[in-house]
Amino acid sequence: MTQQRLSGIFTPNLVPYDSNQQINEPELRRYVDWLIERGVHGLYPNGSTGEFTRFTLEERKRIVAIIADQTRGRVPILAGAAEANVRETLKACEYYASLGVRAVAIVAPFYYKLSPSSVYAYFKEIGKNTPIDVTLYNIPMFASPIDVPTVQRLSEECERIVAIKDSSGEIPHMIRMIQAVRPNRPEFSFLTGWDAALMPMMLVGCDGGTNASSGVVPEITRKLYDLTLAGQIDEARKVQYDLVTLFDAMLYQAEFPDGFRAAVGLRGFQMGRGRQPLSDEQLDDLSTLTNTLQCMLSEHGYTDQPVGGCPVGGAGSHTANPDVTKIVGTVVSELKRRGLIS
Amino acid sequence: MTQQRLSGIFTPNLVPYDSNQQINEPELRRYVDWLIERGVHGLYPNGSTGEFTRFTLEERKRIVAIIADQTRGRVPILAGAAEANVRETLKACEYYASLGVRAVAIVAPFYYKLSPSSVYAYFKEIGKNTPIDVTLYNIPMFASPIDVPTVQRLSEECERIVAIKDSSGEIPHMIRMIQAVRPNRPEFSFLTGWDAALMPMMLVGCDGGTNASSGVVPEITRKLYDLTLAGQIDEARKVQYDLVTLFDAMLYQAEFPDGFRAAVGLRGFQMGRGRQPLSDEQLDDLSTLTNTLQCMLSEHGYTDQPVGGCPVGGAGSHTANPDVTKIVGTVVSELKRRGLIS
Amino acid sequence: MTQQRLSGIFTPNLVPYDSNQQINEPELRRYVDWLIERGVHGLYPNGSTGEFTRFTLEERKRIVAIIADQTRGRVPILAGAAEANVRETLKACEYYASLGVRAVAIVAPFYYKLSPSSVYAYFKEIGKNTPIDVTLYNIPMFASPIDVPTVQRLSEECERIVAIKDSSGEIPHMIRMIQAVRPNRPEFSFLTGWDAALMPMMLVGCDGGTNASSGVVPEITRKLYDLTLAGQIDEARKVQYDLVTLFDAMLYQAEFPDGFRAAVGLRGFQMGRGRQPLSDEQLDDLSTLTNTLQCMLSEHGYTDQPVGGCPVGGAGSHTANPDVTKIVGTVVSELKRRGLIS
Amino acid sequence: MTQQRLSGIFTPNLVPYDSNQQINEPELRRYVDWLIERGVHGLYPNGSTGEFTRFTLEERKRIVAIIADQTRGRVPILAGAAEANVRETLKACEYYASLGVRAVAIVAPFYYKLSPSSVYAYFKEIGKNTPIDVTLYNIPMFASPIDVPTVQRLSEECERIVAIKDSSGEIPHMIRMIQAVRPNRPEFSFLTGWDAALMPMMLVGCDGGTNASSGVVPEITRKLYDLTLAGQIDEARKVQYDLVTLFDAMLYQAEFPDGFRAAVGLRGFQMGRGRQPLSDEQLDDLSTLTNTLQCMLSEHGYTDQPVGGCPVGGAGSHTANPDVTKIVGTVVSELKRRGLIS
Repeated sequence: MTQQRLSGIFTPNLVPYDSNQQINEPELRRYVDWLIERGVHGLYPNGSTGEFTRFTLEERKRIVAIIADQTRGRVPILAGAAEANVRETLKACEYYASLGVRAVAIVAPFYYKLSPSSVYAYFKEIGKNTPIDVTLYNIPMFASPIDVPTVQRLSEECERIVAIKDSSGEIPHMIRMIQAVRPNRPEFSFLTGWDAALMPMMLVGCDGGTNASSGVVPEITRKLYDLTLAGQIDEARKVQYDLVTLFDAMLYQAEFPDGFRAAVGLRGFQMGRGRQPLSDEQLDDLSTLTNTLQCMLSEHGYTDQPVGGCPVGGAGSHTANPDVTKIVGTVVSELKRRGLIS
Repeated sequence: MTQQRLSGIFTPNLVPYDSNQQINEPELRRYVDWLIERGVHGLYPNGSTGEFTRFTLEERKRIVAIIADQTRGRVPILAGAAEANVRETLKACEYYASLGVRAVAIVAPFYYKLSPSSVYAYFKEIGKNTPIDVTLYNIPMFASPIDVPTVQRLSEECERIVAIKDSSGEIPHMIRMIQAVRPNRPEFSFLTGWDAALMPMMLVGCDGGTNASSGVVPEITRKLYDLTLAGQIDEARKVQYDLVTLFDAMLYQAEFPDGFRAAVGLRGFQMGRGRQPLSDEQLDDLSTLTNTLQCMLSEHGYTDQPVGGCPVGGAGSHTANPDVTKIVGTVVSELKRRGLIS
Repeated sequence: MTQQRLSGIFTPNLVPYDSNQQINEPELRRYVDWLIERGVHGLYPNGSTGEFTRFTLEERKRIVAIIADQTRGRVPILAGAAEANVRETLKACEYYASLGVRAVAIVAPFYYKLSPSSVYAYFKEIGKNTPIDVTLYNIPMFASPIDVPTVQRLSEECERIVAIKDSSGEIPHMIRMIQAVRPNRPEFSFLTGWDAALMPMMLVGCDGGTNASSGVVPEITRKLYDLTLAGQIDEARKVQYDLVTLFDAMLYQAEFPDGFRAAVGLRGFQMGRGRQPLSDEQLDDLSTLTNTLQCMLSEHGYTDQPVGGCPVGGAGSHTANPDVTKIVGTVVSELKRRGLIS
Repeated sequence: MTQQRLSGIFTPNLVPYDSNQQINEPELRRYVDWLIERGVHGLYPNGSTGEFTRFTLEERKRIVAIIADQTRGRVPILAGAAEANVRETLKACEYYASLGVRAVAIVAPFYYKLSPSSVYAYFKEIGKNTPIDVTLYNIPMFASPIDVPTVQRLSEECERIVAIKDSSGEIPHMIRMIQAVRPNRPEFSFLTGWDAALMPMMLVGCDGGTNASSGVVPEITRKLYDLTLAGQIDEARKVQYDLVTLFDAMLYQAEFPDGFRAAVGLRGFQMGRGRQPLSDEQLDDLSTLTNTLQCMLSEHGYTDQPVGGCPVGGAGSHTANPDVTKIVGTVVSELKRRGLIS
């Protein structure tokens, strides 16, 4: 197993809550089966989509244990193992190894924004001592970035580091990483976490993805993966376009990952209310979004239309609300004037 | 006590490690006494300077317990209480209340970058249920920002929210907050976490600061506070200039908070090696920085000069290394070309 | 030409347009007199406020010629002289020197974002060949930044470079510049372009400002300058607070500099319609803003209230529209999720 | 003029200077012929690569006139026509129309960072009055961004707006634009200005590019275009990888567009010294880069190796200089700590 590249679509698992906001174990087990039956290549608990920071260490361990038990080796598991410091992270690695997961995924340190030297030192320490294969996890919008020279150096020095999951979504960055690493480590795997670029990422050399959308529409991400791999570019492009529409709605119209949670709810799971409190206005917005998502999913035949019906032209039609467009323009303009964005 | 504004300089405590990278309790106790003897107005464990994210929940609780026990009421304590979610944070608040601390300080949720609505909902939930006074902690470089309307709304709706610590360092932002809150909550306190602007922040209306420098040179920050309060602007300006030089060296020439840890080491404390691993090059750099800091501190009479002596013109002289300047220029230019900075 | 520091408030002149969107010379002359009568220390044509990029070279020259002619030496003039390249800029310097202006102000190259080395080389070439004193103009939100080592090096190598106008608004940056330059060039002048921090900037060592607000309420900026210089901190703070409210409204509620243009219109000048086209929605917004500004200016006695009256509690009252607050929150959240802002 | 989409690779022309830094007309004519002979599909004067901001209006007009005259209709010309304001821009459009160019390209207003509403109003005014087809030019790293709703609205309201050149390099953004525009305007063209993503951009639906690299290695960009169009993905990928290496060296190791100018020099043209002054250190760096570029170009057979030979493993080998890596890390870390980048 170790000499084969990690490949395919790994689903970053959402966690269903019960009415007391605790882990809803039966629903989580049911969700695992449902995903595997729909063709996901692997599972990925304790990622950003899985809200790992909102659980305690004990809860994170329990989530992986439940998923490993339910999966029973049908698909490989990538277990998010980032803890408060190197020592705690290594302890988590040991525990997950004992559960038989395929590898762990470790996000670069966050809160503090660390320099590449520190990111290197952190993963080097882990790479030297881990009892299990490690996937680096680069998500510069949330955590310290793992730059190309750091990935190259770690890949050369640490055999146990076998892959990187990159959520930057930047194509040239992916090309640079592959060019820097593959000559020395042909079995090193590159996975993209940016669903809106899955097809082009694969076409420039990626081995697959860890894509939140695959937890909602595993059929679509699997189809996109298969079509792209088969070189059916024109068909794949259409699927990629649809995925962008759906991904944008789930990602940008609610606090992450609430849009994804709402959509999984529409697929028939009781996801419960999240641990991050929402204001009344946000609950209203989420309800509106759920309606939009139901229209989108009904177009694909995954749900019925909502009771009130759906707009002509498609739920994802890009006829932006002019008021919102105007207000967004104003705000973006303000941010620019303040120099907050470039 | 509750009707009086929090004011003065609260020191965000560093945590000394023993040779096994565990909390060095005796040294921490000695450090607490030293700080109080040098005139800090309060202590602030589990802040960014105190590396709260690198400890486990149990360790964070122990740090506050040690400091509360050692302080014995001599100065008020502001205890950092941010945990994985609202429920865990409230449990921490209850524990810290039982230790008799003056208030807790709670950073906005991090990792995920939340919208103002979510930040509001988070603190509202806490504000409704906390058994102890709460200080909001705004540090937009690391965590979700707490914007002015959110501060205003929380101050109006939650009596238990009594202050904000703001580390943005932006003067107009501070003015806007004060204008928005003080009319309804005259006892609400504004503390700045940006040492390089302490004097001008106080002159526009701040009540004090939570300043990492005060853990290194409590004499200087106290003097700056007293001079500014007394309206001795010319004298205060000179002290503020010196503080900028020292703060910049500690902040920008090593991974935070290692520069501050190195400087406290020069004041006579065994800080031990930090939990974030460093590369060999970083250790070299830290050694060079320590030498520079020793020169700076010796100018103030707080240490001897290092064995090799110090540069003429002052340790903080702004004669930049031309090579470094050039390389920095190159890098900044690259980042700009990539549109990464504006 | 003298060894005296540039100091005081220099007004960055707006340019009135006639009905054909050409320079309205009579109104411009009337505006110049009005400003001088209200105590501004100097005039500053062809700055960002003066929309220098929207005029042709010939128009820029004409604007300075008109202002110089009308001023007749009553106050010094700082003429914006940035042109397409060094050669064109030097030609402009020569022309402005022939008009008898006190100095030119030259913004760092824009569009391309240049490295500090290139910014240095650009100003060095100008500094070597200029026939007139030069003020550097740092406005990082619009143009390549001029960093501290570059200011220091230019100040040491070029006698003809005598000042910097800094619009970053960052207090520690100003302190670092002053520390780096003043020891060798005690007569070098530091002017802030950020009205919302004028008082604290002066208290840390600035010599004055080039403040767009002074073109609208020259009485207030002059009062703020005088009170701060006299050490009347409590009085100055109140004026600074009022200025923040007014500045924010003019800066953030319309495309720059349209808010300032609207406010000058309320002071009795025919500013005409700007050269940057506006959508119908923007024209509506500008009309609403004009009403708000009229309320603010009427509180200071500079205008009557608008026909419909003004809100109780003051035009600048911080009762944010909850809808807007919510939408702004959503947008900011989206930008953050996309990693566009930190 | 036709209903056929603009497609293929348009070369953004560099401008050779003579020893007096004036336009070197004979060399420019020779360069035009050379490009056309090597298969570029079109020419694009007065773009960012062509340093349009460093020329006067008269010079910009002369550059297009020379290129139009030399091209004699062999390939279409896209003429950059952005001037100080709408009126001046429309005058330039009229002049370029009289020269028989295919279309103009107009960058969004720069210096000021305008809101989407203002960007819309600007292009709407142009779209209503232009005598010639218009290509929008979106380059958010230098100018006000043109967002998706703005592109959609302009495409619906203005027949004369027929294409967008997008230099953001972001794949999902390109997909969103195509989805928003193509249903109503099937002949609207999408060109990417980001060479490092040319192949994947085409695979998601782009019609071609305006790529600075095509002015240096027109053979490679043409080959990449043809292979991609033919669906020879594996071969195209290799060429794309090589192009990233070359593009990165030209873009990030010198001030733009000096790396491209140096490389064209190696192809046999006298480009002269640019108008933006360089420091001595920058000249040294440029000389080093020229050597690197010569090695890269010699690998493709376009030049001889430099006299001192080339490194084993390829000029583009990603063995980063550890010192530089370390310093870069430090700087990036500093910028992050200051919150300047996310």
